[in-house]
Amino acid sequence: MTETKTLLDLEIDHSALAEPETLEIVADAARVVLKEGDATSLRSFFDTQEPADVAEILEALDEDEALAAMRMLDLREQAKIFGYLDARYQIELSDLMGRRDFARLMAAMSHDERVDLYKRLDPAAQEAILPGLAKAERDDLRKLASYAEGTAGAIMTSDYATLTPDMTAKEAIEALRAQALDAETVYQAYIVDDERRLVGVVSLRDLIVARANVRVRTLMDTNPVSVGADEPREEAAQIISRYDLIALPVINGGEKLVGIVTQDDAMDVQEEEATTDFLKSGMVSALKTGMREAGIYTLYRARIVWLVLLVFGNIFSGAGIAYFEDTIAAHLALLFFLPLLIASGGNAGAQSATLMVRALATGDVRMGDWASVLGREFATALLLGVTMAVAVSAIGVLRGGPAIAVVVALSMIAIVIVGSMIGMSLPFLLSKLKMDPATASAPLVTSIADVAGVLIYFAIATQILVMMDA
Amino acid sequence: MTETKTLLDLEIDHSALAEPETLEIVADAARVVLKEGDATSLRSFFDTQEPADVAEILEALDEDEALAAMRMLDLREQAKIFGYLDARYQIELSDLMGRRDFARLMAAMSHDERVDLYKRLDPAAQEAILPGLAKAERDDLRKLASYAEGTAGAIMTSDYATLTPDMTAKEAIEALRAQALDAETVYQAYIVDDERRLVGVVSLRDLIVARANVRVRTLMDTNPVSVGADEPREEAAQIISRYDLIALPVINGGEKLVGIVTQDDAMDVQEEEATTDFLKSGMVSALKTGMREAGIYTLYRARIVWLVLLVFGNIFSGAGIAYFEDTIAAHLALLFFLPLLIASGGNAGAQSATLMVRALATGDVRMGDWASVLGREFATALLLGVTMAVAVSAIGVLRGGPAIAVVVALSMIAIVIVGSMIGMSLPFLLSKLKMDPATASAPLVTSIADVAGVLIYFAIATQILVMMDA
Repeated sequence: MTETKTLLDLEIDHSALAEPETLEIVADAARVVLKEGDATSLRSFFDTQEPADVAEILEALDEDEALAAMRMLDLREQAKIFGYLDARYQIELSDLMGRRDFARLMAAMSHDERVDLYKRLDPAAQEAILPGLAKAERDDLRKLASYAEGTAGAIMTSDYATLTPDMTAKEAIEALRAQALDAETVYQAYIVDDERRLVGVVSLRDLIVARANVRVRTLMDTNPVSVGADEPREEAAQIISRYDLIALPVINGGEKLVGIVTQDDAMDVQEEEATTDFLKSGMVSALKTGMREAGIYTLYRARIVWLVLLVFGNIFSGAGIAYFEDTIAAHLALLFFLPLLIASGGNAGAQSATLMVRALATGDVRMGDWASVLGREFATALLLGVTMAVAVSAIGVLRGGPAIAVVVALSMIAIVIVGSMIGMSLPFLLSKLKMDPATASAPLVTSIADVAGVLIYFAIATQILVMMDA
Repeated sequence: MTETKTLLDLEIDHSALAEPETLEIVADAARVVLKEGDATSLRSFFDTQEPADVAEILEALDEDEALAAMRMLDLREQAKIFGYLDARYQIELSDLMGRRDFARLMAAMSHDERVDLYKRLDPAAQEAILPGLAKAERDDLRKLASYAEGTAGAIMTSDYATLTPDMTAKEAIEALRAQALDAETVYQAYIVDDERRLVGVVSLRDLIVARANVRVRTLMDTNPVSVGADEPREEAAQIISRYDLIALPVINGGEKLVGIVTQDDAMDVQEEEATTDFLKSGMVSALKTGMREAGIYTLYRARIVWLVLLVFGNIFSGAGIAYFEDTIAAHLALLFFLPLLIASGGNAGAQSATLMVRALATGDVRMGDWASVLGREFATALLLGVTMAVAVSAIGVLRGGPAIAVVVALSMIAIVIVGSMIGMSLPFLLSKLKMDPATASAPLVTSIADVAGVLIYFAIATQILVMMDA
């Protein structure tokens, strides 16, 4: 049997914690240290780890063990780690903590993380926590919590660094030094007037490069990029990405500075939005938790509505087939090509929709480009349809004779063009109706294109084959 | 007619440049200033604008106008703006510039942007530019260009700030001040030993907070997070996102520091990867340019291969139908439900695949979770299938009588379960085969599920209806 390694003997690489086995070894070693009440070892070990990793280790422990470990750390450290814990685990630990301890922890957390936590508490817990906080913190919490979900205001933080225009560079650096422990970032500092209107931004880089006695006024950028608190959070993330900003100031209707959005928060928004769009593309509603945590009922609910809706959509395809029953009964060979033709229209449409949804999401294509994009799409679809028609006409001759081959080839061209036009237009239409273009997902477009495909195929078949029979 | 506003009269909000009309007005005003050779006005106006916006304005001008405007700015400003220009526009301008001017510009660019540009030049232009650069820059360019596309090495920059462990905080700030003009960031500084092995990282925040005579050695994080130069670039982006880093050090096989990846580059990677995955989900190959710039042939190529492949996949569905021709001929009412049943299996499968692909991409689900995820998926699919069966059985009775209703309901349950299992397993399988799980897109899963759906439906129908007829 191998001996349990003590915590400080472990040399843990950051990426190694992703392995469940390594995480278990670290958690076991941490349990030993906890049982011995060896705060020094725990602190030394956690010191070498990133807060995100410490949070992962705590999540591998039982709640009471995690709480005991937290208590061995200083408050600031606790607050940092707490911000990285899973939402559910945060709530569980907060239930275990005394009300006063929890209030102290919240006071030490960064403002954006603590308002996220506050919003997740049930109303009783929210009420219980407020008296433990200082008035300024209560006000800050209430104000940040008041912004609607999905806005820049809801992801911003209010602990930004401020300077006045008359400070010298040297004084400004001193001022930032004093704010460094509390501010989310000191690399961008904001200059506001008496009414808290944003009048400039200066970077710490510019401050340290400048001569000591130069005034902030002459160093600052007086036309800084900003975003309104009620703008969508994606807008904030896109601005940060476009201008390569470390932080983006957020202003309210009266041009007053109310917070900042930092680059790391913008990354999170970007990832969440990409996930939501991706899930929508597969007709899955956004999950609030990760896939691994989601229960069966959650997964069921995220999927059933679209599935049932699409079933009813496909009834039209069925009705289309039923309508042409005579043609089919007379030429059963037509059925062989039915899945192939229908699927091709759906696939071409899904491709078009995918291209458009993403181009609209990244701003690569705008509403005004509609006509030019549609024209190019028509040309592309024609090329695609002809290629596909050539590919299937040989099989058409083999399985059904030359007449069927002609029907299949013509249908293929028409179906691919119509499917592509539907796939391309639907995202534009949804966008025009102020709906999310990502709703025009592959399965939805496929279902609509299916109906069109059935009608086109059998209509062409009826025309040509009846003509031939006559 | 309205008078043309002069450039300095324009008060342009950053977001306003997204409007083509505003951009045109600014471009017109810039042309006037250029014609008059009024460098002062141009510089003053550009001073109030972000480099990304100036690049957009230049792109709205003709190449020779843009070049004339660039020449009115100082070299450092030129280099910054040039980095924001479209790849194609960069090449066009570089062709217009003299070889010496272009070499000077490249020398002033940030190291990661100039290697990106260098890699886009044709071999002759690459050769032509090298003699104009200093030896250190040539070596840097060749070294950075040597990393394979898609690796952390290929997106890193080599202009990072370094310190030595024996410096005091005050000396370190002085040292960073001296490096501030050339380094990509001074907010993280790297401490390397004599062999350039990374021994620590310190933030400017910690340096300004510390007392002036404290040594870097005691302030630095001696176990910094890093990434290998040959690791995938998504890995680097994920680490930056997980640990909320401003910059991530990149090391080579010998643990030597070779560069850093900054947060803004990580955001770009994240967005590009999300776009690629999204396009894959719709069976579109990644486009090198944006949708708006892509020509018809580019779009055709990005789509035709999958379309044709899927056609041949659907031949199996057709063959399945042909195989059951007798059953169908005897019960044409079955055809009404064909599109509906097939589509349901495909849709359920597309949903499962979408969930899995994204969960694998974000690391939410790992390969080892396969069995537990599949178990839960089976339960979810059973619930979904039963709900759908209930939804369609009423139509079954109406359109085909009770026997058909039973066939349709049983088929629905079986098809939704099989479709979901296919959709869930395919991404895992692809991942196991070292292929990108995102290849398991909605259209591919739909096509596979279609074949299964046809076989299941008509097999059940044949069994039950033949039994009833007997």
